[in-house]
Amino acid sequence: MPSSEVLLLIADLVGTFVFALSGATVATRKQLDLFGVLVLSFAASSAGGICRDVLIGATPPAALRDWRYLAVAMGAGLITFFWAPLIERMKTPVRMFDAAGLGLFAVAGAQKALDYGLNPVMAALLGMLTGIGGGMLRDVLLADVPMVLRADLYAIAALAGATVVVVGIALGLPSAAVMFAGALLCFVLRMLAVRRGWHLPVAGTDRNK
Amino acid sequence: MPSSEVLLLIADLVGTFVFALSGATVATRKQLDLFGVLVLSFAASSAGGICRDVLIGATPPAALRDWRYLAVAMGAGLITFFWAPLIERMKTPVRMFDAAGLGLFAVAGAQKALDYGLNPVMAALLGMLTGIGGGMLRDVLLADVPMVLRADLYAIAALAGATVVVVGIALGLPSAAVMFAGALLCFVLRMLAVRRGWHLPVAGTDRNK
Amino acid sequence: MPSSEVLLLIADLVGTFVFALSGATVATRKQLDLFGVLVLSFAASSAGGICRDVLIGATPPAALRDWRYLAVAMGAGLITFFWAPLIERMKTPVRMFDAAGLGLFAVAGAQKALDYGLNPVMAALLGMLTGIGGGMLRDVLLADVPMVLRADLYAIAALAGATVVVVGIALGLPSAAVMFAGALLCFVLRMLAVRRGWHLPVAGTDRNK
Repeated sequence: MPSSEVLLLIADLVGTFVFALSGATVATRKQLDLFGVLVLSFAASSAGGICRDVLIGATPPAALRDWRYLAVAMGAGLITFFWAPLIERMKTPVRMFDAAGLGLFAVAGAQKALDYGLNPVMAALLGMLTGIGGGMLRDVLLADVPMVLRADLYAIAALAGATVVVVGIALGLPSAAVMFAGALLCFVLRMLAVRRGWHLPVAGTDRNK
Repeated sequence: MPSSEVLLLIADLVGTFVFALSGATVATRKQLDLFGVLVLSFAASSAGGICRDVLIGATPPAALRDWRYLAVAMGAGLITFFWAPLIERMKTPVRMFDAAGLGLFAVAGAQKALDYGLNPVMAALLGMLTGIGGGMLRDVLLADVPMVLRADLYAIAALAGATVVVVGIALGLPSAAVMFAGALLCFVLRMLAVRRGWHLPVAGTDRNK
Repeated sequence: MPSSEVLLLIADLVGTFVFALSGATVATRKQLDLFGVLVLSFAASSAGGICRDVLIGATPPAALRDWRYLAVAMGAGLITFFWAPLIERMKTPVRMFDAAGLGLFAVAGAQKALDYGLNPVMAALLGMLTGIGGGMLRDVLLADVPMVLRADLYAIAALAGATVVVVGIALGLPSAAVMFAGALLCFVLRMLAVRRGWHLPVAGTDRNK
């Protein structure tokens, strides 16, 4: 079913674009120069997938083999660098795209890990890592505690999406359908968490009162 | 000798458990949410071994192939999250287990690196990395300078234990015996360093007086 | 042409030495103990090459297979630890060696990536990564924002040197000649940037006035 492959590639590149926007936005806020902004664009959009590929032994990673990922990330970095105020104003659409990218990366990551023979639990975790890895490297490079370790259901949404894929494949359902369902679940969970301020419990909060 | 293999597996899982406790304890102190605590549990307990496996080309890493490592790390994370005060009170036993885990990881890491054909010096260093890698990632993720770069003979103890294995194997001694001796040496060195406040010299200390 | 191989090995080890000096110097300033200084020496001098080798699937990485890299890095770390004031006083020669090391690592990295079949654009980027990776890990381990993300044409100089190699090889020019030209270009660019304070534009500088 080649049309689903084309759909997946488009989705993948859209995900890369919005994640690169997020990296570049944080980098411009921290007053990095043009190169730093482009590095953060690439790191935020590709680190998750690169980590996954190194861990499952699929080297060189896809993001280093296919120049389109790099081109899209650089484009997003340049746009952010020269029109940063514009991106800042578009906060809501960027957050929507980001949630969509998270879902797409999570399901694609889980699918790829399964293809490389990992067990289902680890495939779901690697799907989550694919979704959140870029944001983690972005924050580590900028010497912050990764936002994903604190924020509203970000990683849990990615894990939920990846789990749908893993369970669906185990039940023999068609790959395209479970990937779509997983990405949708992740997107909806994340948007609801943002809108309603859902978050996980924090240990020891009571002791600080 | 299958009984030594069982012993090693138990030791490995005990090491994973105590390292996961250490990651989760630091994470709860930093007020991360439940997910962040679980990530830190897994990172602190498995990053050393994952790094080693990626560097020697043994992908996918053991910690991603065998679900028991993940289960033990998650268990330690949940215990810490819900009974953090209990763990804090058990400081001495946790530190003892941590020293034991350090020794076990160091010798197992050195042994595995030798199995993959690395030269003895590098095998000893990879054993050390297996022992200390988890703690380093834990601190980097929380935006601290890794404690191991500052603390009392932590890495040196791991290196000593790994060196015993490498030298012993080179001399043709039985693997189980040198691993036991190496782990014991690391454990004793680390406990003595903690009790007596041993530490390595710091450069330029005089200049600050 | 074996003499060029010898030349490259010497250059590689000189690069390792000066990068190790830079790691050790920063570590002594941060009051790490002897072990921490040695770790930073090794990390700063070898992380770029190790990253490149893991990404292109050349495991175990060269820096772990050949003990000479480690020996040179440890030597630089010990010298810095015991004669830190001397190194601090030699600021200009160290910076010159550092620029030379950057160029040599960048061209060697690009060449190796091409050998492993990466496309030219990615080979140039991996050459850059080989040059700058060590410095990035050094700063991440010390909980700083990597200097390379802020500083005067550091990464751009590495990228320029790597690009010369990639373009030259694509045009069928002899490998030794393009590597020399690339390393020289990187060196000159970096030294000029330091002397004249060249740097890339920073986004949003106006907004902070």
